[in-house]
Amino acid sequence: MRMRHPFKVVIVTGVPGVGKTTVISHLKEIAAEKGLKVEVVNFGSFMLNYAVKEGIIEDRDKIRTLPLRKQLDLQARAAKAIIEYAGEKLGSEGFLVIDTHALVRTVAGYWPGLPKHVIDQLKPDMIAVIEAPPEVVAGRQARDKTRYRADFGGVEGVRRLMEYARAASFASAVFYASTVAIIENLEGQAEEAARQLLSYMENL
Amino acid sequence: MRMRHPFKVVIVTGVPGVGKTTVISHLKEIAAEKGLKVEVVNFGSFMLNYAVKEGIIEDRDKIRTLPLRKQLDLQARAAKAIIEYAGEKLGSEGFLVIDTHALVRTVAGYWPGLPKHVIDQLKPDMIAVIEAPPEVVAGRQARDKTRYRADFGGVEGVRRLMEYARAASFASAVFYASTVAIIENLEGQAEEAARQLLSYMENL
Amino acid sequence: MRMRHPFKVVIVTGVPGVGKTTVISHLKEIAAEKGLKVEVVNFGSFMLNYAVKEGIIEDRDKIRTLPLRKQLDLQARAAKAIIEYAGEKLGSEGFLVIDTHALVRTVAGYWPGLPKHVIDQLKPDMIAVIEAPPEVVAGRQARDKTRYRADFGGVEGVRRLMEYARAASFASAVFYASTVAIIENLEGQAEEAARQLLSYMENL
Repeated sequence: MRMRHPFKVVIVTGVPGVGKTTVISHLKEIAAEKGLKVEVVNFGSFMLNYAVKEGIIEDRDKIRTLPLRKQLDLQARAAKAIIEYAGEKLGSEGFLVIDTHALVRTVAGYWPGLPKHVIDQLKPDMIAVIEAPPEVVAGRQARDKTRYRADFGGVEGVRRLMEYARAASFASAVFYASTVAIIENLEGQAEEAARQLLSYMENL
Repeated sequence: MRMRHPFKVVIVTGVPGVGKTTVISHLKEIAAEKGLKVEVVNFGSFMLNYAVKEGIIEDRDKIRTLPLRKQLDLQARAAKAIIEYAGEKLGSEGFLVIDTHALVRTVAGYWPGLPKHVIDQLKPDMIAVIEAPPEVVAGRQARDKTRYRADFGGVEGVRRLMEYARAASFASAVFYASTVAIIENLEGQAEEAARQLLSYMENL
Repeated sequence: MRMRHPFKVVIVTGVPGVGKTTVISHLKEIAAEKGLKVEVVNFGSFMLNYAVKEGIIEDRDKIRTLPLRKQLDLQARAAKAIIEYAGEKLGSEGFLVIDTHALVRTVAGYWPGLPKHVIDQLKPDMIAVIEAPPEVVAGRQARDKTRYRADFGGVEGVRRLMEYARAASFASAVFYASTVAIIENLEGQAEEAARQLLSYMENL
């Protein structure tokens, strides 16, 4: 069984408000300066576009009306399409960075973002977990209600989600012997976090 | 690969003394009032009856004499039989609720109650984890020695078992992208816990 | 699918400095006194010798130059070879004890020591996790710099590695319904720890 893709696959996870987007944007910049080939894909966005293109949903907002179990097949197909897309972009070198979640808080409980049928497609070299103090994360969520639409249960809710997401990351890592890189993203130090992430990636 | 059964499969777990039986009995009542089809199966009991019926053991008490590794094949066959039974009862709708454990404290260490070969049969939509403060759980175990025959190591032993059982639940959830619903069962509020569980189930 | 080997497979894990080697050496002694057949294999050493014998690397020190992803195939082949070796030594009874890690701290992040492709070969009856207070472990690492070449981040670094290694153990245990035996190895009580481990093993 094939254990890896020709390029390296790095999944970057983190609870909402942890600063994942900022870290990834720094990562792109630093990688570009270094002349590294990095292709970043947001799993959720890619899946939505894919679902519209394939006629599975009419428009992106309709995904919310799709029951969890109907999203399963869509997830696996989107994961496969991401790898094909990266293959065209990267060929046999460089890094595919996938921006997603290890665990999602839903109205039906905590939902694994990296279940077996997705991991079987992605075959990640690394699962990075961006973390920050729960107080900081909860503060960001409280300040920007338009961006963080769901209620994450304050500091305690965030602390739990982070703990469970870490457990889920280790569980997902066992399937393809992915490394788990825990990256601390402290206030105002997103660039340092990105540099640490890239250093882990270059050691893969 | 088929990812789900036609009906929804909800596995309800919890350490001994957490009040799982009471929550499930409230769940049955509330579901009946709402006109929802719910079939509850206790995994352990079903497996014992199955083992006797199939001539694998002479009577139910003989299961303790069956070594752990001999129980593995029995588990998978019982899980398959539970799904067939539920198919007859539920057809293509409603909920199969399976009362079992995510982790069992044995004389050979902590034993996963939802290993891959069982999960491959059950394909759960949800793994619910009923929790309660370790002090409350240890208190119940101490008061009712006839029911909780094993020694669970007091408050600290219960706290650990609960922590490890949660980790095991997330590990089992990754195989079929099951949601993990953590349900707090506070003293005297088992009905509220059952309502919360049902609310999660209805959002599957 | 075969769920077990004819002999019993016990994987003994623990972070560097936890006293794993001492516990295993006591285990061998006690098992010999009791007339139990126990074959101990160090996974890392066995893999290195195997790699040299098969011409994959020139000499044992060259393993560090092999990138993580190239080690994956080697791991699976070494695991298979360990089982074959144990079959010759043990026949259809006794215990194969494998000395290894559930999680390894690398320059590319935490790396699962018991990923699916290794577990698929080993099919463990038990994953034992040797633990000790993080302060004790960090103290041993600080005193013996020649043995513990990597920096494990002091008490807090050890505490985290132990916590994550336990999560990884439970994740690996789900594949073949292995029990997880958490063994406390307190200062000066390695023999007691070995006796407890053996007691768990005899109950498999």
